[in-house]
Order: sequence, then structure tokens, then C-alpha cells
Amino acid sequence: MQRAAAIIGSAIFLVIAPGTLAVYVPWYLTHWHFAPPLFPIARVLGAADVVVHDHLVAPEILARLPRRATRIYAGKQRGRHTMTQGEINRLLVSLARQGKRIVRLKGGDPFIFGRGGEEALALARAGIAFEVIPGITAATGVAAAAGIPLTHRALAEACVLVTGSRRKGDADLDWEGLARPGQTIVVYMGLAGLERVSRELIAHGLSPRTPAAIIQQGTTASQRIVAGTLAGLPRLAAQAHLRAPTLIVIGRVVRLRRVLGGFMRSLPARPALDRARGTAQRVR
Amino acid sequence: MQRAAAIIGSAIFLVIAPGTLAVYVPWYLTHWHFAPPLFPIARVLGAADVVVHDHLVAPEILARLPRRATRIYAGKQRGRHTMTQGEINRLLVSLARQGKRIVRLKGGDPFIFGRGGEEALALARAGIAFEVIPGITAATGVAAAAGIPLTHRALAEACVLVTGSRRKGDADLDWEGLARPGQTIVVYMGLAGLERVSRELIAHGLSPRTPAAIIQQGTTASQRIVAGTLAGLPRLAAQAHLRAPTLIVIGRVVRLRRVLGGFMRSLPARPALDRARGTAQRVR
Repeated sequence: MQRAAAIIGSAIFLVIAPGTLAVYVPWYLTHWHFAPPLFPIARVLGAADVVVHDHLVAPEILARLPRRATRIYAGKQRGRHTMTQGEINRLLVSLARQGKRIVRLKGGDPFIFGRGGEEALALARAGIAFEVIPGITAATGVAAAAGIPLTHRALAEACVLVTGSRRKGDADLDWEGLARPGQTIVVYMGLAGLERVSRELIAHGLSPRTPAAIIQQGTTASQRIVAGTLAGLPRLAAQAHLRAPTLIVIGRVVRLRRVLGGFMRSLPARPALDRARGTAQRVR
Repeated sequence: MQRAAAIIGSAIFLVIAPGTLAVYVPWYLTHWHFAPPLFPIARVLGAADVVVHDHLVAPEILARLPRRATRIYAGKQRGRHTMTQGEINRLLVSLARQGKRIVRLKGGDPFIFGRGGEEALALARAGIAFEVIPGITAATGVAAAAGIPLTHRALAEACVLVTGSRRKGDADLDWEGLARPGQTIVVYMGLAGLERVSRELIAHGLSPRTPAAIIQQGTTASQRIVAGTLAGLPRLAAQAHLRAPTLIVIGRVVRLRRVLGGFMRSLPARPALDRARGTAQRVR
């Protein structure tokens, strides 16, 4: 399944080589500033000479690209990176210097664990202008499709977003900070580290009975939700043979999906595990 | 200025009375699941009998509503609430029971400090089915337009979202948790409490020199950014006579906009204060 994050919104970098800015500005400003939900993204895509895209971009979006546009796949899946981040940065700079109109197409939002800041910085340092169209980040889109409001009065007054995808040299997650009560925790790309997330949060004071859910391929027709307690979730996820991409949501708001899930019509019905209810249930 | 949050994406609740679901499902599933960035929101709006909308919805979006649709304004501005949340909840239930096709149109994302969970819960408890289309929440959209990536390797490995808008009986913010290093803090609706936010975070250990910015009417043509340090921001914001709606971003990532801001072409140039640079600068 290629399209989970893209389904919830694709972020687009418009990378504009110096001197070509005027080509874009008139219609871009008109449409983006005054009505983004109606924003004709097809027109942005249609203007591309080159599209550099990631793993989580829906084929339906790629299908809208003009035939003449060169497509470059720069996807990074766990253990299968086509390019390093440095190579992607250099590619964007190099293409822009050739005067190409580039669309950098990413799943989700480029500035929330999307490394969009690093790419933007590389462009800025090379003196290349660009535009950023924010996307719907997985936390928002996937949780909504799962019937979980990330904030809710009296249940969660804050929401913290972290990534479970770590590289060598990264600082460890601030377990003590994450384990503070009253906030919803969203872990991006956390499947591989789920057992550790559960263990550390409990060790740092979060109740083992805190409601928690892991959602695979959220917002797609292949969405699967496994819900239970913080202590029990790793075992349930293993039993369900979940695969990336996933999103983990931890906190009392997870309980709301038991009420909301049955009335949401956002997704086609599909069976999933929900041990908190004691039975498999259909996901809406 | 009425349209800040709407400009960054409007969330739509499709509230569907029991029995009318079939009207929506076919095209809804087709378009939403397979290509949301191309999703013809105009068609959703076009199907509405009644639209219940908030303050932060762009007039350009309201202009797309069919003439026959009844519009109900349920906006809440500081100190000027047309309806209480309970009244809004009851209104939605009552309209759905009359068999109306309702679009509940909110600025931003309904499940991030949008009280969408409360409305959805009221509907679910009344046995009314609905759909939720996630929006782009202010943190993502406004920060991106301001040239601030909310996460960035080595600068911020986590991002916490809180609201400065409190009501009687709400727990105080978890200042100790917010003041932990290594995360970006985003405060929604924080202008009135900015002085307190600054004081409490410093009292709880955050460096007074932590970069911080407050953005008024982010993503609109009237966007204004005031940037400085956590300690100095309240005075700068007062000098600039900022008005709601605003978004506050605190953390080392704020520094990136000094590099990125000059190369972003997301907004028309407009002067704003940036004391960190020592001079007024143009916002891109």
C-alpha cells in the first residue's frame, strides 16, 4: 500500500529557480491565499518540469502530473532508502539551478517529521526561492479517520507529536516529558519501537491502563486499528501482524472512538481488532 | 479580518441524518479516499441544506454555498459568543433530526482545539451518523507560512500543541512539562496570555533567550510576525499592537525563519517587526 499519508494530504514544495518566480506568482497568490480548500493543486502539478516524490504519495496524484514532467522517486522506507537526505537536498538544488520548475511532493506535512525544513534550508542556502503548501499531517488525518479527537476538554488539554523513527546520534525521546498526564501522545512511525514506547512510558509514570491505539495505513481503505491499553498494545499489535506505516495514539481521548467510531462514515467498514471491547469490530 | 484559520484549510463535518447516508457515500468515498488534495469540496458544500459555520471561515468558501442553503453563524470570538457550545451541539442534533443535510464548517482542524470532539460526541449519542474531513490545523499552516518548520533534526524532536484559551474550571497548563527542552511549543489563541506564558515557562526552566515568535492572522495577506526571545516577546507584541487570532511558536526552530523567510514565496511581502534582526523586515 503506497498511499497512506498521501491520502491525508500531500505537501508540495514549489521550488522556483531564481528568475522564474514571476511565472508562478499571479495565479498562485490568487488561489492559495484566498481559498486553499478550493486550491487547484492540479494546476500546480501541471506546471512541473520535474517532480521529486516520496513513498507515501497516492498514485492518483501522480496520475495528474503532465506527461512531459520527469518523475524522480526519492522515497525512504524503513531499510530501503533510494537516496540519502543529503542526496535529495543536492538534487533539488541542482535541478533548480538548471532552471527547472520542480514540485517536491511529500506525503503528510513537510514540516512535521517530514524533513522539509532540511530541504528548504538547503534551497535557501543556495539562494533558491520556493513556496511551501502545508499538508495535513498524519496525526490530524489518521486520528480523525479513526474517530479519535486529539484534544478534548477534560481529557487532553495538550497534544505532543514525536517520531519513533530514530537515527544514530539522535537524542533519546524525553520519556519523562512524554509521560506527563493530561496530554495526548502521538508517535509517528512507531511500530518498530512500540514495545519500548510502552515500557518507557510506564516506567516513567504513565498508567499501564492508559488507552492506546495503533493505526496502520490510516485513512486508506486498508486502514486497521488495534486498540487497547498502553501495557497491552505491543502484544495486540504483534498478534495483528501490523505493518508500517502506522501511527500510535496514547491518552484518554482514545476511549472516545468507542462512541464516535460507530457513527463515523469516513471509511468503508473493515474488520479490525479492538480488545478494549473484547471483540473484533468493524472500523468505519 | 475574518479568515485566518480558514485560509489554512477548513474542516467540514458532514452531518448526516440516519437514512440519508446513501446520498453521500458514493462520491464521497470516491473522491476523498483516493485524492483528497483534489477533493472537490465545492461538491460537499453544494449538497448542504444547512451550513453551521464559525468565525474563521473565509468568505470565499461561504460564497461557494448553494443559494438554497441556510447559513447559521455559530462563531465564537473572545468575549463575543453567539452560542454556547451546548447550544451548538443541540442545534446540530436538532437539524439532523429534521432530516437536513448539514455541513458544519470550522476553521482549521475540528479535532485540534476545535471542540469537534464534543460536537461529534453529541451527534453520536443522539444516534446521528457523520463524516469528518480533517483540516490543516493552525500550527501546521501558520508556522509553514511563517517559514518555521515545527520539527527539525537536532533542534526539535517533538512538538507540543496547547491552547492559551482557558475557561473557568480548566486545569492550568502543565508549565513544567511545556518547559522541557528539545521541543517546539505551539500555543493557540495565546495573545491575551502571552505575558503569563513567557513568565511561567522561564520560571519553570526554559531559557529567557529561547527564540519565540507570535504570528497574527497567519497565512492571510494581513499576516504579521513578531519574533524575538521568550523573555522579550510580550513587550514586542504589545508594541506591535497585535490582535487575535494569533499563534505563538516557541523553540529553537523559530531561528530557522531568519534563513528560510527570505526565500519563501508563500505570502505577499509585508512589513513586520523582527527584533531578533534588529530591524523591521519584510515578511515573505
